[in-house]
Order: sequence, then C-alpha cells, then structure tokens
Amino acid sequence: MHKRLKLGMVGGGQGAFIGAVHRIAARIDDEFELVAGALSSKPDNAKQSAAQLGIAPERAYTDFNEMAKAEAAREDGIDAVSIVTPNHMHFPVAKAFLEQGINVICDKPLTSALAEAVTLAEIGKNSKAEFVLTHNYSGYPMVREARHLVQSGALGKLRRVNVEYVQDWMSEAITDPDNKQAAWRSDPKQSGKGGAIADIGTHAMQLANFITTEAPEKLAADLTSFVEGRLVDDDAHMLMRYATGAKGYLWATQVAPGSENSLRIQIYGEKAGLSWAQENPNQLWYAPLNEPKRLLTRGGHGTSEWTQGQTRVPPGHPEGYLEGFATIYKEAADLIRNGRTKDCILPTLADGLLGMQFIDAAIRSSEHDAAWTPIEV
Amino acid sequence: MHKRLKLGMVGGGQGAFIGAVHRIAARIDDEFELVAGALSSKPDNAKQSAAQLGIAPERAYTDFNEMAKAEAAREDGIDAVSIVTPNHMHFPVAKAFLEQGINVICDKPLTSALAEAVTLAEIGKNSKAEFVLTHNYSGYPMVREARHLVQSGALGKLRRVNVEYVQDWMSEAITDPDNKQAAWRSDPKQSGKGGAIADIGTHAMQLANFITTEAPEKLAADLTSFVEGRLVDDDAHMLMRYATGAKGYLWATQVAPGSENSLRIQIYGEKAGLSWAQENPNQLWYAPLNEPKRLLTRGGHGTSEWTQGQTRVPPGHPEGYLEGFATIYKEAADLIRNGRTKDCILPTLADGLLGMQFIDAAIRSSEHDAAWTPIEV
Amino acid sequence: MHKRLKLGMVGGGQGAFIGAVHRIAARIDDEFELVAGALSSKPDNAKQSAAQLGIAPERAYTDFNEMAKAEAAREDGIDAVSIVTPNHMHFPVAKAFLEQGINVICDKPLTSALAEAVTLAEIGKNSKAEFVLTHNYSGYPMVREARHLVQSGALGKLRRVNVEYVQDWMSEAITDPDNKQAAWRSDPKQSGKGGAIADIGTHAMQLANFITTEAPEKLAADLTSFVEGRLVDDDAHMLMRYATGAKGYLWATQVAPGSENSLRIQIYGEKAGLSWAQENPNQLWYAPLNEPKRLLTRGGHGTSEWTQGQTRVPPGHPEGYLEGFATIYKEAADLIRNGRTKDCILPTLADGLLGMQFIDAAIRSSEHDAAWTPIEV
Amino acid sequence: MHKRLKLGMVGGGQGAFIGAVHRIAARIDDEFELVAGALSSKPDNAKQSAAQLGIAPERAYTDFNEMAKAEAAREDGIDAVSIVTPNHMHFPVAKAFLEQGINVICDKPLTSALAEAVTLAEIGKNSKAEFVLTHNYSGYPMVREARHLVQSGALGKLRRVNVEYVQDWMSEAITDPDNKQAAWRSDPKQSGKGGAIADIGTHAMQLANFITTEAPEKLAADLTSFVEGRLVDDDAHMLMRYATGAKGYLWATQVAPGSENSLRIQIYGEKAGLSWAQENPNQLWYAPLNEPKRLLTRGGHGTSEWTQGQTRVPPGHPEGYLEGFATIYKEAADLIRNGRTKDCILPTLADGLLGMQFIDAAIRSSEHDAAWTPIEV
Repeated sequence: MHKRLKLGMVGGGQGAFIGAVHRIAARIDDEFELVAGALSSKPDNAKQSAAQLGIAPERAYTDFNEMAKAEAAREDGIDAVSIVTPNHMHFPVAKAFLEQGINVICDKPLTSALAEAVTLAEIGKNSKAEFVLTHNYSGYPMVREARHLVQSGALGKLRRVNVEYVQDWMSEAITDPDNKQAAWRSDPKQSGKGGAIADIGTHAMQLANFITTEAPEKLAADLTSFVEGRLVDDDAHMLMRYATGAKGYLWATQVAPGSENSLRIQIYGEKAGLSWAQENPNQLWYAPLNEPKRLLTRGGHGTSEWTQGQTRVPPGHPEGYLEGFATIYKEAADLIRNGRTKDCILPTLADGLLGMQFIDAAIRSSEHDAAWTPIEV
Repeated sequence: MHKRLKLGMVGGGQGAFIGAVHRIAARIDDEFELVAGALSSKPDNAKQSAAQLGIAPERAYTDFNEMAKAEAAREDGIDAVSIVTPNHMHFPVAKAFLEQGINVICDKPLTSALAEAVTLAEIGKNSKAEFVLTHNYSGYPMVREARHLVQSGALGKLRRVNVEYVQDWMSEAITDPDNKQAAWRSDPKQSGKGGAIADIGTHAMQLANFITTEAPEKLAADLTSFVEGRLVDDDAHMLMRYATGAKGYLWATQVAPGSENSLRIQIYGEKAGLSWAQENPNQLWYAPLNEPKRLLTRGGHGTSEWTQGQTRVPPGHPEGYLEGFATIYKEAADLIRNGRTKDCILPTLADGLLGMQFIDAAIRSSEHDAAWTPIEV
Repeated sequence: MHKRLKLGMVGGGQGAFIGAVHRIAARIDDEFELVAGALSSKPDNAKQSAAQLGIAPERAYTDFNEMAKAEAAREDGIDAVSIVTPNHMHFPVAKAFLEQGINVICDKPLTSALAEAVTLAEIGKNSKAEFVLTHNYSGYPMVREARHLVQSGALGKLRRVNVEYVQDWMSEAITDPDNKQAAWRSDPKQSGKGGAIADIGTHAMQLANFITTEAPEKLAADLTSFVEGRLVDDDAHMLMRYATGAKGYLWATQVAPGSENSLRIQIYGEKAGLSWAQENPNQLWYAPLNEPKRLLTRGGHGTSEWTQGQTRVPPGHPEGYLEGFATIYKEAADLIRNGRTKDCILPTLADGLLGMQFIDAAIRSSEHDAAWTPIEV
Repeated sequence: MHKRLKLGMVGGGQGAFIGAVHRIAARIDDEFELVAGALSSKPDNAKQSAAQLGIAPERAYTDFNEMAKAEAAREDGIDAVSIVTPNHMHFPVAKAFLEQGINVICDKPLTSALAEAVTLAEIGKNSKAEFVLTHNYSGYPMVREARHLVQSGALGKLRRVNVEYVQDWMSEAITDPDNKQAAWRSDPKQSGKGGAIADIGTHAMQLANFITTEAPEKLAADLTSFVEGRLVDDDAHMLMRYATGAKGYLWATQVAPGSENSLRIQIYGEKAGLSWAQENPNQLWYAPLNEPKRLLTRGGHGTSEWTQGQTRVPPGHPEGYLEGFATIYKEAADLIRNGRTKDCILPTLADGLLGMQFIDAAIRSSEHDAAWTPIEV
C-alpha cells in the first residue's frame, strides 16, 4: 500500500511564489502530503494559508522553532520540512529542524552569509537527518542527459564551460512596495550581500558543476548594480578557470530587457559540444566533432536509458519547470525512505556550501577589481 | 478549510499511459484526491494498481458498473470519475456513471462509434451530472491566448485555419505484442473505425475549433494506411470549408519520421496571423499585418490578464503538457463545485459528439474519393 | 583566358524587380556580361535603363523582335537572352529568340496560358537553342542535398510530400497604381488565369518535383480570392496523389499576415523525413527513423560531395536567394558552352510545360469543386 | 552611361579563399571590374590565376611593388586595389599602394603587428588615397538596423555588450600541409602574435564597436592554446568595461565543436535589448522593456528607411555573407567616386588601428593573468 511521506513547510504563505512551486513539485509524483506548516511569521497569514492548504489547525504554526519541536515530538510528525523563506531565514530554520533530526528540503542559496553555511554544514554532519538543496534545474532530464554525455566521455576532455542566467524583471528600480519578490531580493538584510549573483548566479554555477561534475578553481568577477540606488548587484560576469585546464565564463543578470528566465549552458570538449537552454528544456543539442549536429529530445531516440526513466510523458509532450522540480522531490522521497546511495545526485549541503563560497569569491574578486580569486572549499 | 474533491478512475492500471497523466493532472492543483478505481478489468492488476496508488482495498473495483453503483450509494462516494480506458470502453463506462448521477471526466475521443456518441449526448442531457472531455491541448495558456486574440477581433475576419498533428511512432508495423499503446490504437475493435483521424485528428480539429470558436462546415478528406497490414488509417489529410468563408486544411499522421508530437496551428485573418506549436507551448507568434511579428510568451508582456491568471509559474519558467492537462482538471473542479457558468470553456459532450461527427465525415469523405462531406451536427 | 558569355535581357527596366535579380545572379559567378537589352517597351525607359547598366546605345532595343533579329545577325551577338517580363510576354519573346537560335533563360511561369506553353515546347524541340527556366529555388544547395537524400534512398519509399509557399503582401486590395509588382500579378491579362497558384504555386510544385523527381498524378484543389474585387486567386490549397502511392498537400497563399516569403517543404518516407525552409536556406533537417534529428548545413559535415561543390563560401557563412539564383546561371553557362549532359538538372521547357499543366489542372479542379483532376502531361 | 571602377587585387590566387569572396562582392553591385592583379608571389600561380579571371597578361604581376608603380603610371590604371593576402603582407602592400596614391580596400586585421598599423595610419593621413578595411559583418543590413536602434536612443543608456565569435574548424591539430587556410592562420610569422583573437576576435570587437559606436576602455583577457603544439591562441575570452559605464564580454574561439561561424551579439540598455546572429543574418530581435519581443527582418515592417534602402531583394528572400560584403564594396565605390562624407560608415584605417590595439591589449592582459589593460588609442 502506497504511503505518502508527511511534509511540513516553513515560509510559503499567501503572496509568496516559491512555496507554491515546492508544493506542486511535492504533489506531482505523489510521494508527499503536506500536513504541517509555519507558513508565515504573521499569525493571520499563517493560519489562513494553512487552512487554504488543508493543513489541520493544530499543525499551523507561527514559529518555526516551535514547529520543529512539536513535530519532532509527535508520533505522526513530519518526515521532512521544506524551507521556502527568504534567504536570511534558511540558516535558522534549517538548523532548528536538523537539530531535531528532521530531514530538510531547502531552497537555494543555502544561507545569506558564508559563515552560516559553514556552520550549517557542520550541523548537517552531526545530524542523522538528510539535507536536500532544491537546485531544481538539475532535475531536468536533458540537463541530466548532458551530465551523462560528459561523464560517458562523449565530449572528451573539456575545454570550455559557458553559462548564462539572464532575466529582465529588475531592469528598473522597484518602487512598488507590494512587489515582495523584488523587495526582499534587493535588500541585503534578507538576501545577503549578493544580489543577482546569489539569486540566479548560484543556479548557473550549480548547473555547470552538476553537468561537468567539477567546479572552477578560481574566478575573476565583475559585479555591477546598474539600477540607481540598488544595494546589491543586479549583474555579474566572470572568467573562470578549472583545475583540469578548462576555462569558462558565467554571466548572471536581472537587467537584460527581453529575457525572462534564460538560463543557458554551452560545454565544449575535445570531441564534442553541447548546449541547453532552460526556456526550451526538452531539447539538448549534441554536436560530435566533424559530424552533423543532433537535436536530442527528452525521452527521445539516442538518449540514455537513465534519463528515459526520468520522464513522465512521452517525447514531444513537453515537461517543464515544475516537473524538473518534482524530480528533486521524488528523489528526496527516495533518499528519505532508503538512505543515501552512491547513485544519489541530489544537491547536498556540500553543494550549498560551495554555492556560498562561490558567491563570496565572486564578491571578493569584484571588490578587488576582478582579481583572480580561488573558490575556497 | 480546503476540501479536495473525491475522484474515482476507470482504466489506468499498470502499463497504461494516459491514466497516470490524468492522475498527475488531478494532483497538480490539489483539487482532487483519488479514492476509488476500477483500474483494470483484470482483478490482479486492478488490486495491485489500486494499492500502489493508495486506494483503500474496499474501493478497488474490477467492474465499473459495480463501482458506479457502489460509489453512488456511499455517503462519501466519489464526486467525479475519470475514464481513461481504450476508446471502445468510453461509452459504457460514461453511461454507467452518468446514469448514477456521477460527474464524468472522460478522455477523447468521446466514443468509438458515432451512434454511441449520439446516445451518450442524450444521456448527458438527462443527467444531473457534468461531463468534461479532456481535450487537454485547450488547457494550454497560449492556446487560450490565441482564442482570446481571435475573439477580441485582433485577426479580423478569418481566412485560413491550418492545423497539423504529426507523429512518427507508428511508422513501422507494430510487432511487439507488449506495445499496448500501439496495439489498441490500431485495432478497430478497440479504437473504432478511425486510426490517426480518431487518435490525434480529433485533437487537431478540437484545437482549431476551440481557438476559432467555429467548426468547419464540410471537408474533403483522404485517409491512408501507409503501413502494410494496418487496419486503420495512419495518415489523414483534408481540405476544409467554413460557413464564414474561411478555408483550411488538417493533416494528422503517425508515420512522419522525426516528428514526436508535433501539433501545430496557424490561423490567418484579414488583420493578423498567429501560430502555435505544442512542442514549445509557452510561445505564440502574433503577426499584425504590416507590423513586425511579436513573440508572445506565457504570462509575458502583451498577453491578456485572462491567460496571465492561468499560469502557475512566472514567464520563462516553462509549463508543459501536464500543466495544460491540470488546467482542465482545475476547471472541472470548479464546474463540479459551482455548476456551469457562461465563462466555462471546458470541452463538453457536444464537443465530443462533434469530434465523432468529424471522424465519421472524414471516413465517409475518404470512402467517396475525398468528396465534400458535411460535418453533420 | 576566361571569356564571359554575352547576355541580352528583355524586360527588367527601371521599376522592375526580377530583372535586377537576374543581372546580379548572372554576375556572381562571372560567366556572363550584359551587352544588349530590350529593357522596356517604353523607349525612354529602355534607353535610360540600358545606359545605367552600361549597355552600348546601339544595343539598347525597344522591340524584342528587332533585338532577336539584330543580335542573331551580329558576329558578336548575344549567347543568351534573359526574359524577365510579366508572364504574358514570356511566350512571344521566348518564341522570337528560340526561332533565331538564341539560347533562352526565362523567368517562371513558362507562359500565361497552357496553349502557349504547348506551342513553345514544340518550338523548343525544333530549335538548336537551349532553354532554361529560372526556378531558382532548385539552385539552393540544401534543396539539392534533399534531392540527393531522396535519390540515394535515404528516405526509402516516399509517403508524404507537403509543400507550402506563404506570403502576406497581397493581404489587402492594391490601391497604389505605382505598385507595379502587385498590379500585373493581379491582372489576368498580364499574369494569366492563375494568381497565387501561378506566381508562387508553380515554385512550390517545382520544388517538390525537383526534390522527389516525380510529379503528382492528380490533385484536388480549392482556389480562393479572399480580397474583395481581386480577379485571380490569392490562395490555393490542394490534396495531391502520386502514382507511387505517396500523397501530399500544397498550399500557396499571398494573404497570410506575418509571412514574407515562406516556402517550406517536408518530405517523409518509410525510413526518414526531411524538411527545409527557404527563409533559412542553409539548413536542412534530416530525421532517420528511430534516430535523433540531424541539422545538416550547407557545405557542412554529413552533406554530399556533390552539394559541397556547389557553395562559394564555407559553412556558417550564409548564402542566400541571389546565390541560389546564380547557380542556375552558372549551370546555364555550362549548358550553353558544353551542351546538355545527363547530369544537367536545370529546369527545362518540359518543367515549364508541367508547371502550366499544374496551374491548369488546379484551376479546373477548383472550378469543379475540388474534384480530382489529373495533371495532363 | 555606367562606368565601372577599375580594380586590382593583391593575393587571391588559386587555392585562396577570401580573394574569391572579394571578387564576388565587387561584382554583385557592378561597380568594379577586375583588370589587374598580383595574385600570387609564385609566378605560375599568378599568371594562371589572372588568365582564369580574365585579366590581361600585361597586367598580371608577380610583384606588388611593381604593380603599384605600373598601375599608377598607366592612364587607365586601377582606381583601387584589394589586398587579400595573409595578414603579414597587409602592411607592405597597403603601404606600396597608398604611397602611389591608389585607393586601398584591405582585408582585416589591418596588419600583423601593432607598430606597422601605427605607421600605416600615418601613411594614410599623408596619402590622398582612401582606405577601406573590409570588416564585412558591418555590411549586413540588420547589423546596421541594430546600430540605428542604438543611435536613435531606442535602447536608452547601454548596460551590456556581449559578443561571441565561435568556430570549430581548428579543434584539432592541423596536420594536412595543404590546408592553407589553417596553416597560415596558426603561423605567427604570417598571422602575427594573435590567433583566434586576431582572426575572428577583431571581427567580434569591430561588430560591437560598429553597433554601439563606442569601444571598450579596457579589458581583462584570458587567451588559451587548447590544441597541443599550437603557437597562437585558439580561444580568447575577456571582460570589458566602457567609459560610459557599460560592461561586456567577448569570446572568440575556433575549438568549439558544432559551431561553424557563429558570430553573435547581444546588447542591452535601460530601455530595450537586441540580439543578432550572423548565421541567420536577416533577423534581428528587438525587445523593448515590458513589451513583447519583436522579430525584425531585413527590409521588413518596422525597420528604418535607411536599412530598407540597403537590400537588393524583398523581405523573406534571404541575403547572405556575400551581399553584406558587397555592400562594403558598393560604398567603397561611392567613397572613391565622391569622397568621404559625414554619412560614410565604412571601416577606416582608424578602425584597423583600433583593432590592432585591441589585439595587443588582449595579449598583454593575458600575459599578465587577465589584468585590466586599457586599449591604448
């Protein structure tokens, strides 16, 4: 008999965006049911949001610490908590649940400051609980196909890794106080010191690292706040060097008119190249040297059995953002049920820490006029 | 407090495809919970499938008639049933539930024979239950944006309606007896007299009708079975004429190598043209006469408030096949809860009947050497 | 020492379009020099146009009959004449030059009436002169690559041939008397009975015939004049049947907003499919059954030596409309110099006659309510 | 009466690539006739090549100095010389002709060493002759449309300039001694110190400068020779900063499998973004902030009268690489005939010098670990 895992959520009350995404992602493969939440620090919002989501009133908390303790104490307590707050709350919430031994599924970036990330990584090591960072783009089947191609040696030794994450929604000063999404992202107290570099740059970096299974050794970064009065960067670009000799660039911006959510990656090796774009995620270009380019499609001919097993609908029936996200949840359920195996490729606390070190290195490099700066691991 | 509707399902046991799609679609917006099912006519499959889906053993039926009666009799009986069987079972199952006053959500085409569809339409008129046909492609936001553009007069008087549904998965004779999807689709006893015309041609026709809010008056169709030994058509093309003076063509095929699920539509009017393709469903080309073409995106600038309200994630975060399908379920929930309003655009029994009349007219036209044949309504 | 062929031109004076195209095409590969012309029937225009083009005054004619005779009589007379007049003048001009034994390079369609085409074909048989019809789209390297793929058996037995030629520039009534291009094309006295079917439908048909090396046996056509007051069709679509069992459709329109010069073809066989679009002519999609789609590029990996020898610049350096046209001229020069070989694939009088029979069959079919009508050859 | 300008050529004998391109470009608009040449330093090649091109034997030189003097002395001497040799010969040849007062049309980069470029710029100032550098990509109409949009203020203040020139043809070590194109490009004695940075990086930089009408102030560059044994860079990427506050990156590579000649540019300002790709040059994306993206086409609706006047065929009839190149020649003819006007936008000696300074700055920056290095002007 199918038994769903019990899920709690911190953050994600009315007016939030990413909380709803997590909830749909958790439902798609039917491995979770949402039974508890501290959905808002505002009691009214927390209560109403919980009711709308069918959470029983006694499990609608306003304080995440209280929730962590109460759920840990219940016999039917939650199996995992999803953390979908603004960045600065990731640390205290994750800490509270990890310390109670409750598995954590946390939105990125890991924390709003590097020091917190270091501490959290330590806490994680000492907790029996699992930790999954929702770098959802690594859930797309064709991203995984790309990883498979690189790992199988189809590209040969890598030479170039170019990744871009391009948006336009912060092209102007945000003057609408009701624009919650923009407001907290451009407030260093809530988002951390990084703006675009943290919000989307970390996604771009993780995507590249996920596919290549290596991280750059050092970077030379130039961060800018193009919009007057903005307190954090809204544009970041950098050169990167890998220990293996590969090179690359990363560009993350939120001020490029005409760009919605254009995360793209190109990887070139001695024997082949590939490219993928998030806005049309069911396709992957694969170009073996001296042969015609091939358009691989999700579940389609020429893709690996591994990724063919990760799709819900046949080729030509597009999956999207929510399905990629759902795959993270599906695999998190497997992780929670069966423990971590060597095949698990879910983003971990270590990936989250690496992401924070990346942000930190980029900011420090930029403060030193784009000086080469190692990503300290 | 959020209360989910109780859903039953007929068909969709292990090894089926579209049943799983319906279940995900029903879960995405959290308006339904699956509580009963006659998932297979084979008792073992029915039982195991139900257990895997978390359906209580006492509500795991093997006989849909029994299920209809039992659920109608329960105080906590299902609010709706999803019918996801091969085509020839749509009629008896839908009849059974409608006669018990249970709302029906049914896969297309409506039935496997026109006469059944006529009967079912009558039964529907006399039932208090609602009936929704899952022409899921009409759930895509950019399909609806296209409908909005036509209805708002942006295209002016329509001149051309061209629609194609192109696949390749039946390009060869199906010799694998385990290929259930291909097997029943090419067996007239299960699929009806139509092959590609019924399986995908109806989708193409409904898409065109949905966007233009009119149906062709008559057609001149040429159906072919290209693969030797195939008992139904695997390719159908036709000219169409509308009462308004518009003309068009429809092409549906399952033998076009390189085509996965390529449903495309182009509509041209006196003042503008538009085009949409299912494999990249988040985009809609809109070309006002004598102006540059514009690429409209789901939820993006220049789209209507109406369709902006029908998306779950921001522009640039692609939605796909399952989200389009989920919108049908979401609106079905609203229909079941609140009754049919004038704004309801869900495909109805009448649309299903029209689809059967379309299949019938196409087959008759083809039998008469592509003679012009009215779609009798 | 390189010796250019001497070229004359009839039509193509100031204000004309296609004459300038022919002249550039003739220059690109440096096989011709323009030395004589009857560029306009208006003496002033003829004289001024000739001077602008560097034609000596004594070879600037106003009468094409006089030109044919005078040039035939000169020792240094022209090797070939390009006919770039409106359709109704193709016949008398071609006749005049063929009868003088002067090679003819003629724009399409062959004539404005079928009977003239039949006569001209007879005249051609009895002339020592060569005749080339400038169906320029067959000069594109990737169109030829498509032909090569079909002929090499890569597609297997053909099943579908779909071709479309879609424009929008006649979407409205032409009220500007200075719009010469539109004016003569919609005047049956100058263009013949066919409108879009003759102007662009013949291109589409020839493209399909060129690639498949077969012509449809019969067609069922529906022609329309959508714009009020227009005397010829501006939209034509049809079903087609081939003797080999293949089927197809052809759609030609000049009233589809957002379409500039969108000539596209898709061909599907038992073993593979291909598609090509004129607006991006350096690419050809090739999809072998059960393999990933491949994007072939002009001169690129995986293309034949034959077509690699037909490009002037390396892959990735786009060639366009004028280069495709130039290839027709280049091969015409070779034909004139060396006579017709079995490898010559230039469109002939026979192709022109077939085009006229196609127009005629389409118009007759449409007059009989889209009855199946053989293309009489 | 139309009089063609008399053109000579240095370089471009049998086996060369770019010489043939220049000759076609010069013919397309019929402003030049090739009458003299020192097509090769090998006498046999020079003589045979000249004969093939219809050059009179007495004007088939083997020594460019002799040619410069002889042509300057003839009454019917050449109006201009095209220099299409490997890079290291640009300087002495250009010097020879400029000093004879003969107009020069020279391939890029200007010279193989910066010092030569400085000298040549001086010589140019003291010569009555005109100098045109064939940065042909600035001849594409949609590149000019992009420039027009920037200059008209449609983008507002610029923030980002990203340009890439990506090829794959040098992905492997060149072992074929007959591969002339690759051989001289990877020999510093012929190409200069720069490899990809000089061969294609200068095109990318010029494209960006041409559209934005500004050049970056400084850059931080990282150059690599990925292929073992290669003596010059085959990959170059860099961050750039503009005096106006804009930032950008430039990436030029010849080792990216699957890339033929992929020159692409994206420019973002406060009010709009645009992007263009050379392999499909008839399109330009224009995205005004908070509006749908528009696809502008060469000669199409919504483009400027200025660029509409620079096309030879209607919208939808693609122009390509050769037509863009021809526009440079067409405008060079106008320059030679009428002198330099303020509207002339042809690349000059100053642009060539800037290109050499760019190469020099990039190499120096790379030698100093990607230190910020001004482009000294």
